[in-house]
Amino acid sequence: MTTYFRPSVEAMTGYVPGEQPKPGTNIIKLNTNENPYPPSPDAIAVLRNLDSEWLRRYPDPYANEFRLAIAQALEVPFEWIIVSNGSDELLNVVVRACAELGRKVVYPMPTYVLYRTLTDIQPAERVEIPYGEDYRLPIEELVAVNGAVTFIATPNSPSGHIVRIDEIRQLAARLSGVLVVDEAYVDFACETALPLVKEFENVIVIRTLSKGYSLAGLRLGFGIANPKLLSGLFKVKDSYNIDAIACLVGAAAMRDQAYKNECTEKVKRSRTKLAVELKQLGFQLWDSQANFFLTQPPKGNAEQIYLALKERGILVRYFKQPGLEDKLRITVGTDEQNQILVEALIHLV
Amino acid sequence: MTTYFRPSVEAMTGYVPGEQPKPGTNIIKLNTNENPYPPSPDAIAVLRNLDSEWLRRYPDPYANEFRLAIAQALEVPFEWIIVSNGSDELLNVVVRACAELGRKVVYPMPTYVLYRTLTDIQPAERVEIPYGEDYRLPIEELVAVNGAVTFIATPNSPSGHIVRIDEIRQLAARLSGVLVVDEAYVDFACETALPLVKEFENVIVIRTLSKGYSLAGLRLGFGIANPKLLSGLFKVKDSYNIDAIACLVGAAAMRDQAYKNECTEKVKRSRTKLAVELKQLGFQLWDSQANFFLTQPPKGNAEQIYLALKERGILVRYFKQPGLEDKLRITVGTDEQNQILVEALIHLV
Repeated sequence: MTTYFRPSVEAMTGYVPGEQPKPGTNIIKLNTNENPYPPSPDAIAVLRNLDSEWLRRYPDPYANEFRLAIAQALEVPFEWIIVSNGSDELLNVVVRACAELGRKVVYPMPTYVLYRTLTDIQPAERVEIPYGEDYRLPIEELVAVNGAVTFIATPNSPSGHIVRIDEIRQLAARLSGVLVVDEAYVDFACETALPLVKEFENVIVIRTLSKGYSLAGLRLGFGIANPKLLSGLFKVKDSYNIDAIACLVGAAAMRDQAYKNECTEKVKRSRTKLAVELKQLGFQLWDSQANFFLTQPPKGNAEQIYLALKERGILVRYFKQPGLEDKLRITVGTDEQNQILVEALIHLV
Repeated sequence: MTTYFRPSVEAMTGYVPGEQPKPGTNIIKLNTNENPYPPSPDAIAVLRNLDSEWLRRYPDPYANEFRLAIAQALEVPFEWIIVSNGSDELLNVVVRACAELGRKVVYPMPTYVLYRTLTDIQPAERVEIPYGEDYRLPIEELVAVNGAVTFIATPNSPSGHIVRIDEIRQLAARLSGVLVVDEAYVDFACETALPLVKEFENVIVIRTLSKGYSLAGLRLGFGIANPKLLSGLFKVKDSYNIDAIACLVGAAAMRDQAYKNECTEKVKRSRTKLAVELKQLGFQLWDSQANFFLTQPPKGNAEQIYLALKERGILVRYFKQPGLEDKLRITVGTDEQNQILVEALIHLV
């Protein structure tokens, strides 16, 4: 075959997303960190009553109705918000706007695997720095690299730990490139780095409606940053990246903060219970501020347990990569789902 | 301000989409080539009855239900299809997979402005070749460039003319890079280049549901090509680029070919009528196989007419760029909408 593709694309393997069985399948799905509760009834009502004229016409290129709902819910200025087709698209846009050959993209490892994929596609120079013992942030090493883009996921996946705002502040002050704070799981956490966007022009906080708001199927993410930083991102994003339905449904979900908080509180209570039960089974657990745990089975036979659970209709996430082969990432489900998981694990450890 | 952005991004101006007034606004919208008829009732029914579980969970990364519907409607193998968040995203993915500094992207001009934007973002070497008299395709010039990517829009925008399949075949045979045949408006045309994907591994035919299927608000496009060509594009596209709702609604629309054909036939009949009426007013018209006309007002005062129509609540498209300043692009509406346009024009020419 002729090589149609750029060398960087030719050389890479694509990102492999977690397994996605169809809705209706009789599966307990604890592998891709969805919220176990349905989306806000207000959001569903918007869907049911949508005027088909919204389908026929092009959507608003800025998704302003959604931006307005975000601005009100988070008390940030409207102009400081950019929205995207899932937060993945916004991560992609940041890399395309800021990184290229001769510029560095840097992040602590292990973390969200997509940072690597996006850097390799671009391509840019990729620098991966291991987290210290107990997920200590390697601040000095990150500052020394001073990337065009630095990614920090907090809460981080797959570890579930948070990076404290004081540490992010130190980083932001010492970097001259863009610092992306990926807060996909912030709705389950005890703090946010959002105040930093007002302190630092180079900080963008990125969020998603896939987790806290139970809208993974809808693909909605957004970023909050100084408009100077957003200006370059607006140039790179596709004009009509958000469809009209997602814009309206997402706005309704965002306006219903009470419902979102109720669901995330339930998940947090279940997280506490599940932690106790997994520890009783001999699992090693890292403290999690997200809706999942990174956990090490007592015998370290993570792949075997992953496969055995799958056979029983329970999906958890197994990463076949250095440092993670003996661990599983388990999404916190409802108490009922977690109970079925624990009972299955009793026979497997 | 520090320059966070790559030089190519810093230098460019973003793509400016056409004006998008909100649904419900009392406007006759003939500026962005939407279909004037609503989407298939089957598609709307899917939306009304959607199980909220589709929202909560991540979508199928391959949007296979939508791919299956396309495969059946167009009689192409399932594996030869890639789907995207509007055809714009797929154009973007092709450029990112195949083009970079030292590689050329080439297309005849005037054409869809996004090809330029995407090339400049990447960046790649941009080669724009003027169409000949009466939109004759500059085949020899395109072959001489032999780009990593060659774009041909057919029917072309803003001219509305089609490039005949024989000419595209000649091009495909003589190019070693990827030939993108952008058939966004094919549902209003008398022929398609689709058979070429089986003849040539380097040809991808790209389509959208925004025009023929009246689903511009939903953002759905797709490409058909040899799986060898698709392999590199799958690596570059975002995993979850299609939301679950769009996948299901789009599949329903694609299965309802009869309704789509009925609507596009009505538009084609209205196109014939509108052509006669515009000519009677002294407008110069290019033959169009799309759902719009490129037209030159008798006195060439296109911008003035654009503004006067806007004041009367009628939006048409005016491009302030060389070769187009004296022309307007007018979407074919319903007979009733076209009549209101013509009556307004009587007082303006």
